[in-house]
Formats: sequence, structure tokens, C-alpha cells
Amino acid sequence: MVESDMRRHKITFLPMDRVCFTDGDENLLEVAMKYGVHINSSCGGNASCGKCRVKIVEGAVYSKDNTNISEDEYKAGMRLACKTSARSDIVVEIPLESQIDRTALRRKRYVPQILSVADIGSLVKGVEVEPVVSKIYIELPEPSMQDNISDADRLLREIRRRYRIDDISVDFKIIKGLAKALRDAGWRITVTIAFTKTGYKIIDIEPGNKEDKNYSIVIDIGTTTICGQLLDLADCSLPGQDDSPENRLDTCTIAETSDYNAQISYGDDVISRIMYSQKKGGLKRLGEAVKGTISKVIKELLEIGKVDMNHVSHVVFTGNTIMTHLFLGIDPKYIMLSPYTPVFSIIPSLYVEQVGIDVNEHAYVYIYPCVSSYVGGDIVAGVMGSGISKSGKTVLYVDVGTNGEMALGNSDWLMCASCSAGPAFEGGGIKFGMRAGKGAIEQVKINPLTFEPMVLTIGRLKPIGICGSGLIDIIAEFMIAGLIDRNGKFSRDLKTERLREGDGDYEYVLCYAKDTQINRDIVVTEADIDNLIRTKAAVFAGCITLVESAGLTLDDVEMLIIAGGFGHYIDIEKAQTIGLLPELPAERFVFVGNGSLLGARLMSMSKSCFLEAERIAKMMTNIELSDNNRFMEEYVAAMFLPHTNEKAFPGVIARLNEKGRG
Amino acid sequence: MVESDMRRHKITFLPMDRVCFTDGDENLLEVAMKYGVHINSSCGGNASCGKCRVKIVEGAVYSKDNTNISEDEYKAGMRLACKTSARSDIVVEIPLESQIDRTALRRKRYVPQILSVADIGSLVKGVEVEPVVSKIYIELPEPSMQDNISDADRLLREIRRRYRIDDISVDFKIIKGLAKALRDAGWRITVTIAFTKTGYKIIDIEPGNKEDKNYSIVIDIGTTTICGQLLDLADCSLPGQDDSPENRLDTCTIAETSDYNAQISYGDDVISRIMYSQKKGGLKRLGEAVKGTISKVIKELLEIGKVDMNHVSHVVFTGNTIMTHLFLGIDPKYIMLSPYTPVFSIIPSLYVEQVGIDVNEHAYVYIYPCVSSYVGGDIVAGVMGSGISKSGKTVLYVDVGTNGEMALGNSDWLMCASCSAGPAFEGGGIKFGMRAGKGAIEQVKINPLTFEPMVLTIGRLKPIGICGSGLIDIIAEFMIAGLIDRNGKFSRDLKTERLREGDGDYEYVLCYAKDTQINRDIVVTEADIDNLIRTKAAVFAGCITLVESAGLTLDDVEMLIIAGGFGHYIDIEKAQTIGLLPELPAERFVFVGNGSLLGARLMSMSKSCFLEAERIAKMMTNIELSDNNRFMEEYVAAMFLPHTNEKAFPGVIARLNEKGRG
Repeated sequence: MVESDMRRHKITFLPMDRVCFTDGDENLLEVAMKYGVHINSSCGGNASCGKCRVKIVEGAVYSKDNTNISEDEYKAGMRLACKTSARSDIVVEIPLESQIDRTALRRKRYVPQILSVADIGSLVKGVEVEPVVSKIYIELPEPSMQDNISDADRLLREIRRRYRIDDISVDFKIIKGLAKALRDAGWRITVTIAFTKTGYKIIDIEPGNKEDKNYSIVIDIGTTTICGQLLDLADCSLPGQDDSPENRLDTCTIAETSDYNAQISYGDDVISRIMYSQKKGGLKRLGEAVKGTISKVIKELLEIGKVDMNHVSHVVFTGNTIMTHLFLGIDPKYIMLSPYTPVFSIIPSLYVEQVGIDVNEHAYVYIYPCVSSYVGGDIVAGVMGSGISKSGKTVLYVDVGTNGEMALGNSDWLMCASCSAGPAFEGGGIKFGMRAGKGAIEQVKINPLTFEPMVLTIGRLKPIGICGSGLIDIIAEFMIAGLIDRNGKFSRDLKTERLREGDGDYEYVLCYAKDTQINRDIVVTEADIDNLIRTKAAVFAGCITLVESAGLTLDDVEMLIIAGGFGHYIDIEKAQTIGLLPELPAERFVFVGNGSLLGARLMSMSKSCFLEAERIAKMMTNIELSDNNRFMEEYVAAMFLPHTNEKAFPGVIARLNEKGRG
Repeated sequence: MVESDMRRHKITFLPMDRVCFTDGDENLLEVAMKYGVHINSSCGGNASCGKCRVKIVEGAVYSKDNTNISEDEYKAGMRLACKTSARSDIVVEIPLESQIDRTALRRKRYVPQILSVADIGSLVKGVEVEPVVSKIYIELPEPSMQDNISDADRLLREIRRRYRIDDISVDFKIIKGLAKALRDAGWRITVTIAFTKTGYKIIDIEPGNKEDKNYSIVIDIGTTTICGQLLDLADCSLPGQDDSPENRLDTCTIAETSDYNAQISYGDDVISRIMYSQKKGGLKRLGEAVKGTISKVIKELLEIGKVDMNHVSHVVFTGNTIMTHLFLGIDPKYIMLSPYTPVFSIIPSLYVEQVGIDVNEHAYVYIYPCVSSYVGGDIVAGVMGSGISKSGKTVLYVDVGTNGEMALGNSDWLMCASCSAGPAFEGGGIKFGMRAGKGAIEQVKINPLTFEPMVLTIGRLKPIGICGSGLIDIIAEFMIAGLIDRNGKFSRDLKTERLREGDGDYEYVLCYAKDTQINRDIVVTEADIDNLIRTKAAVFAGCITLVESAGLTLDDVEMLIIAGGFGHYIDIEKAQTIGLLPELPAERFVFVGNGSLLGARLMSMSKSCFLEAERIAKMMTNIELSDNNRFMEEYVAAMFLPHTNEKAFPGVIARLNEKGRG
């Protein structure tokens, strides 16, 4: 992306003489952040802190806002980096007060492997795109005395004749109104046919030709966030200019949205949800809460896509095992109690009325199969969606949500595990933690000399809090700047006002109140750091235990896919610096964002994937980590920055040593 | 039966010197009726008319009641035949006033082929008895950290392991309560497994071993009558002393009952029901009415069988196409309108909740498939239940209910047809007509000299009305006695008080008011006779049209199976006399009673029959009679007693000629 054809202008930052490129839309603060050039800034790129002052030495720029810049300064070329963009090749000088430590410049910058939707399609190249629920227009011959078979048989006969489908039946619900529907439509109808494990089923009849009105919705029920996509099934079935599966998968996704799972009011993590479900009326309330959010997400998707609810014929749900249980109103009690058994792994196809959500009453619902109590349909969907079950390479898939869930394998074998990571990466248990959303601090750099931060938020708004990727940046930057030791404790003797004794805890002030939307200092506390260390330790320990359970070492992992809601992207090097990700070459990492949705989408758009899902779930061998001594040892060893075993992170250690932080 | 080992005493009737045998339980009137010996009697065998006086000349008798016998007469050996039974070989003299016409004695008496339930089993010899819904007791290994698969998978694994069933799933409804059910039962449970077209399904879980509590209910939804049987599925699955399928089918039927279809209030026949269904709220009301009766029948079956509703796991329904539509709440409008199309022929397996009747909520419901608008599941069930679809012989199956429905064929081919017969044989459109039940006149003889009747009712109670078999007897006796001509009109010049001008119509008094339960004269009117002629003409015309459509003649029919609710039995010779049944040798006739229930029973007790039902329905070629010229011609020709074409009934004509009734 950085070196792409899109670049328009060269920007040279002084005094470090660092040459960068921009497509012209980015502001200078964003360009600097991307290329690892430090400019102080703590308002998230909102012009309110006035700290990112730069001097334009050469070339043309455009500035949206000149708050905090005097007329004289303006004439001298001073601008706010966060509000200024290049209009030609330019040279920019960064004033002394916010210059970066030169040593940082020597770091090799890894370009994060953020995949676009089209790129992700390439992971599942060759998948057959053939929607599970399809619509076909047919004109039936009218009954006569020579041909007076039943209406249902007339319909089936025509479909069998034209499509050579034998195992097809008419759903009982449809039979009730069939006679009227056929006659009102003058025997010219569109039939919605669902492909199920036990054959085809006619689930809806509409008058006239409605072949082009066929949509599905895929929903990932996360513990914290519920994400949905609206797919145009009619579109993806059409051969287009580029009818490669990956392109068709991409173009048919016409809306995407998400919302907080309303169950959050009843507890942050799955265990607290299960506990709540055991209270009187708790199970019902949790079910209603999640369905409420789902209905909101669906409504929004339909509004964005301008699609009529009655044209949605398929809904696919994925989620972790607990979310799936609660969504279906099934008591998850024994998931919490040793030996941690879920009630089910596979749920047959259902009707919307059986799950109780607001779409076309004829819609068919598929729930992604789960593997075990803590490896759910979201992981099965992720494994399918990222093509692991068809891969020749050995892939490690890590989904860092509230739970750390991971899968390992290839087309021949699959293993999985999960550990309680805690909700730190989704903002839980972090004083100013938040989900990746507008106003969330997602990128941070800290000047190792002045300890001044450079902060970018999603949407470049005044900060509200810190999301997962921001937290990873912060801890890594703390380490590099020497603000914290390897146990995650602040150095008490550094000369900076940003470090202070807060509410009974040492803390670092990332943004002062005036620069925020919340009018409070946004700080990172030692307790926050501790929480993050626990989380990263659990994820890392889970990965290594899983890999070793398969008789492999981390080096055998040929591709490491990262899924989850960290923010827009995650900086691999920083994630390695804190010991969250293993030290593998950058090119082995792939970020897929919400992997679960990818799989959900495939499930709706491909009959073969629909069948494959269950095979994957059954094929996955679950490694139980909750009473696993090996895992416990690994966990304890990982409760250090980056890790007790320095040999596992030679690059990180080398960089820290280089900066005298060893 | 008559010549069996059961006979205990020889009874010689004088003056005709007719030797009969009795098992001792029958009264003399019953013995006389059985052997075609006429004794006047018009109170149904209830001692109230006092007409069946006989004189015991030799031997010992026991009399329950001596009403109408003076002391002197008693001493002289006079007794009421209806209240007297033999205690040794006896000689009985029938007084002159009630002596039979001698010529009648020369008639060869055909013994009706009434089959007992066990006999009927022989029609389906070799059927595999293996209930569609079965219960198995299993003890599951408790979950452990080494084995913590989901509860549903644990269950399925055990069943797969023990029974090698692969295509089995747990029903969604069961999954909801599964965790608690398994643990409450200490992992020792009884699983109810339903066999469906698309594999096995676990539909219920009970604690402990309940293998012996597995029942099914089969219901025939007739237009007039709803009949049900309760089957002990656990029993029929057990190999017993005689574990031939026919025996097991027999012994497992533990209760049987029936009731009028409450829909009768909305019309006597299917057409009037369809018309009612088109009124506002009509469809709903008809559905509620029939379900009300079904629930009553089920309740009664459970009471008789002393079975808990929760142990019923399977319910099979049969019925004609209209009854099936109305039962399921499906608008039958187009069945009535040319070209007479039903909405469906095959309905998938359903849950009770989908049809709304009162049994165990987990019960599986199967609706027998229909063939066409007027050949319904009852005929498909009859064809299966009487073994036609597996028969090497060519069989004609005739079900005379409100509709005359017939099927013809063998294991290679099947054809069917139906005609509107009218409800005469079920009591409809007949002034004193009634369904076969206690107090219904089921057998009648008329003395051709005195025109006095000899009447027997079901249950030997005072008469209430006349059922189907009674009507056939009456018309045949009218013909033989010369009371009516070949058009069914009474001879106006006969000297008997029993023949009179009634309410604007000529009528014959069968029983005087004092001898009845209803305190009104029970009469047979010319309008009644006319109705019966229409009915028998339709049935006969239907049979011959069907046979000829297959390119056969009646003589090619190797077995003629009669089903329907005529009463306890039908006298073949009399049915031939009126032209209802064709003149085929008596040994080709078989009476199966409610043939539809036979098939319904098989459907519940045999997986192979369950699968076979649909094959039969699909295999049956429907011959439409409603606009069939050939049928209309045959119908008109049959509107005569016995038939316009005398050559078709040579035996009947000979007998009538012999009596001077030609």
C-alpha cells in the first residue's frame, strides 16, 4: 500500500531527512506515524492540543485549521501537522520540542499485512460460489382435467424437470398458502429453495420474477460486539466481468455494521454471562438482550443496503460456544463447570421463528457448529473463511477477542484451543479501554527523550479512550522509551510530568483532559499494564501450547493469521515487542479482521462451504488448556515483557538492548 | 367359524328340519339368523316385541327372560328365541305365524368372509415389524476432562457406537433441555428415536429405563366417523411365543374406539364441508371441530388402554384428501372446482404442535400421503394394510364410506378412482339411518309370505336405527319378498299393514314404536331406497369403470377386498342381490372393516411400511370419474335392482325368477 501507485507526493521530514510518500489525502501527522517519524501530539489529530507544530520548508500545502498558530508563525511556515496535507512534494521540519529520538529511525519498519476484502478472498481461491438459498423463476402449466396433480406436486415436478433436483420437498408452512399463491400469481412464480443437509426445501413462493431479490445476512455474535454483513446473493450468483470467486465474494457484500452486544450490561466476559444466566430469568434476559442487538444490526444493514426485510432468505450466525448457547436460549451452565461440556456442537438448520429475530418469516437460519465449550462457531468460521481447511501450508489462526481462541493445521488435520484472555484488547479491564471505534486511540508513539506521546485516533477525533492496537503500541513504546521495566512497572525516577502517582496507582498521562472528548486525563495505569500482560501471556501461551501439542515448533508455522477486533490494524513488531505474537518473519503474518464473518459469508454463498463447516467442526481436535500443566507453565513464563525466555524473542531483546533497555 | 371346534350343541329347527350348531353362548334367534332360518322379530332381540316365540320340543335350554309367555305356554315349552340358549342338543319348533317360506331354505348360504384382526395380518405376511419410533435405554459415560465433548455428541456417539446408526441428529427442541435431562437422570436415560425419510432423529429423552412405555396412536379421519387405535410399540417389538408379524400386529393393538366427526354439524359430505370452509372463519371452525373429536378419541383410547399421554411417541393419521386438508388447516377450495386439484399429496413428518392435538409434545406425526382430490390417504393406507402393493394377485379394493373409493392392482401396478357415493351406508340421507353402533339394526330377514321382519341389532338392544349392512339386508329382502320392484318402488297392492303411505311417501314399518328405543316407528321409505340405489350404483359403476380402464373384466379380479363401516359384517349374497357387489365367487371376497386403520397401524409398526406408503401413493394412477362418460353410462345402467344388464348378475336373476320376482 505504501509503495503503491497511489503515492502522489514526496515528503521529506527534517532534521532526520526521512523521505516518505503520501497519496495527498493523508495529513502530515498520519504520514509521520506511518513512517515511524515522531511528532508530539496527544489530541488524536484533532488540532486541539496544538503540539504537532511543524514548519513547511519547501512546497505547497493545504491546512484546514490553524488553531494555536499565530499570524507570524503562519507566515514563517508553521502549521499543525494533523490539519495539513501536501499539495506538492514538500520538505517539513519538525521543531526540536517534538523531535524523535534518532535511534528509533534505524528500526526496520514492518508493513502490517492488512488484507482488503478482495485480498482475503484469495485465501479461499477456487471456492464454488453457489448460494445455499437460491431463487428461481418458473412458469407452471395450469392444471387441466388431463393433468390435475396436486399444486405441490406440480411445483416439484417442474423443478425436478428443469433442474434435475430429486431430493426436494415443499415446506409445510408453504403448503398452507400454496393454492392461493400459485393462482394469484397466474402460475408465474419465484421459488426460494434452501439447500439443507437432508436435501432441498422450498421455503418461499413469490408472485412474478423476483430472482434478483435474494439477500442473506451473516452475523458474528461476539461477547462484546455483534457484527453483521448484508449479502446480495443474486449478484454473487451472476457471472460478471471478473467472476473469480474472490471477486464475487467481495462485490456481493453490500452493507456492514456492528454494535455492542447488549448482554454487556450483564457482565464483560463469557463467565460472568454464564453466571448471570443461572439467576432467575437470567437466561431469558440474556437471550432477549442479544436478540435485541441482532435485530438492531439487521435493521441497520437493511437500511444501509436499502433492502426489504422480506427479501432476506438466509441468515448465518457464528459466535463462540457460550454466545451461541445464550442466543438459542440453551442453558450454558455446564460450560462453566469442570469438565466444561457444552450442550451441543451442531445445530440443524432452523427457521427464523425458532430463534426469534426480525426478518422474512421464511428465512432459513444456519448456526455455525461449535467444537467445544471454548472453541466456538466463530473459530470454525474463521478456519473456513481463511481457507485453512483447504491449505497445504500449516497455519496458526489466532482470534484475540475476550477469549483467546486458536486453531492450527492444514487440509489434513486441525487442532484448536482456547484460553481466557480477558477483554483487555476489547477495552475491558483497562481504565480508559474501549472498543475500536471513532475516537479510540489506535496508534501511539512516545518520544524516548521527552516521553511526549504522539497519538492518532480512529476518525482523527479528540480521544475518548484506547483500543486494542493502541494498547499494544503503548506498552511497546513504554518498553522502548524505558518507561516500564520488564515486569511492566513504571520507572519511578524518570523526569516527566506525564508519569505520576494516580488513584493509588502509578500512571502515565497519554492525553490531558482538555485534549479529550471526555474532559478527563486519559491515563494508562500499572493495573492496565498488568491486565494487558495477562492477556498477551495467555494468548502466547495458548499458541505455543497448541503448536507443541501438535509436535511442532513455532518455526513450523508457515502462516499466522490474526483475527479479532484490535482496531484497524495491529503493528506486528510492537505486538512482538510485548510478546503477544511470536517472532516469525513478517511475511508469515496475515490480518483478516473479523475472520468469523468471512466464514459466515462463505457459508451463505457456497453450498460446498455449507457442507464443509460441519466437517471442519468435527475434524478439529480440541486441546483443553484449562487444566493443562504445560499451558500453565507457558503462561507464567509469558508474564514478562516480552517473555521470560529471551531466546524466543531475539529481535526484541536486541532492539531493547540497543536502546539500553535490556 | 360355524363349522369350528367351538360348536357345542346341535339345534334342529322344525318344521323345516334344519340342523344348526351353536357354541352355547348365542341365543336361538341369533343361531336362526346365522343359518338363514326365519323367526319373526322386530325388537332387535330385546324380548320386548314377543314375536320370536318358539317351542322347545327336545333338550335343555336356559331362558333369561320370559316376558310375553304365560305359565301354561311355558310349561308347554314355549320360549322367546331371543332370550333362550341351548344347554344340550335341542329340537325347536317354530310356530306357524313366524315360519319361514320354505323356498328360502334352498338358498345356499354364503358364509361372510369376516376376517379377525389376526386373519387380516395374514394379508401382510412377512412385513418387518420394527416401529418407526422406538425407545432405547442407554447408560452414558459421564464427562471427564479427557472426554468433554458436548452432551448432544455424547448421546449421538453412544447411539452410533451401539446401533451403527450414522444419519442421526438431536432435535433442536430436545437440545434445549438436554443438559439438565442427562444430569438429572444420572446419565441413564431412555431415548426416543424417530425414523424419518431423512434419517433418524432423537425426539425425546426420559430418565431411567422407559423402553417398555412406547405407544402410538393411529387415527382414521373419516368424513362421518373418526376411528382410532392405541398400539403398544414396545410389545410388538418383542419377540414372543408366536412372533410372526401378523401375530405381533394383532397383540399390540390395546385399545380401539371411534366417534362421530364433529364436522358433521357443518355438512354431511365432503362437498358441503368444502363449501362451509369457504365461509368466513369456516376453515378454522372445521379444523377445530375435527381436532376436537380427535382429541376425544385419543383421550378415550388412553383411558381404555390405561396409558399415559406422555408415553405416546408416534401418531399416524389417515383420511380422505379433503379431511386431511381440513385437519391441517389447508384450504381445500380447488378440490371442489374443476379440474379438481388438491394442494398437496405428500406432507413431511410433523410435530404434534404443528397440527395441534393433545398428546406428548415430543410425539412425531405422520400424515398418510394422498393420491388425488378424491383418493386420499385412507385408500393408500388400505392398499398397504391389505397387502395389495405386495400381492401377486390382482386385487380390487373398495372402501364404501361417504365417498366410494377404490383401488385396483398388484405389486406391479396400481390404479384408483373415487365417486361420490353418498352417505347412505353410514346412515346419511336415510330416514332412520345410523352408523354401525349399539342399537343399530344390522341384520334383517323378511318372511315372504307374511312380510313380517326378523331383526337383529348390534348389542341385541331395542333398535335405534338402521346401519349399512342392515340396509343392504332390507333392500335385498324387499326384492326377494316381492315388496319392491326393480326400480325400488313398493308394490302398492300387497296385503300387509307394514306397508303404508307415510309422510307423503310409501314406507315399510320395520319396527313399531313400542319395540324401539326411540318410541317412533322405524320405517324404510321409497326415498331411502332411492338413495341406497344411487349409492350402490355409484360404487358398482366406479368398480367396473376402474376395472375396464385397466383393460380387465371383473372376472380378472382375483380378490375383492371390502372396507368400510357397514356394520359388523356384510352379507355378500345380499350385496350382490341389490347390485352393490359384482357376482364373483364368494371365496374371492375379503372384508377388512376399517382398511385405512390397518395401513395406519403398519405405518407405525414398520419402518419399511413407512417408506412404502409414499411409494404406493406415487405409484397409484388416478382415473378421474367426475367427467368420465363411461362412468356416467355405467352409473345409469346400475340404477336398477340389481342392474339393467341382467347378464352381469345371472345368479341374482335366477334366484329372483325362482321366487317369481323376475
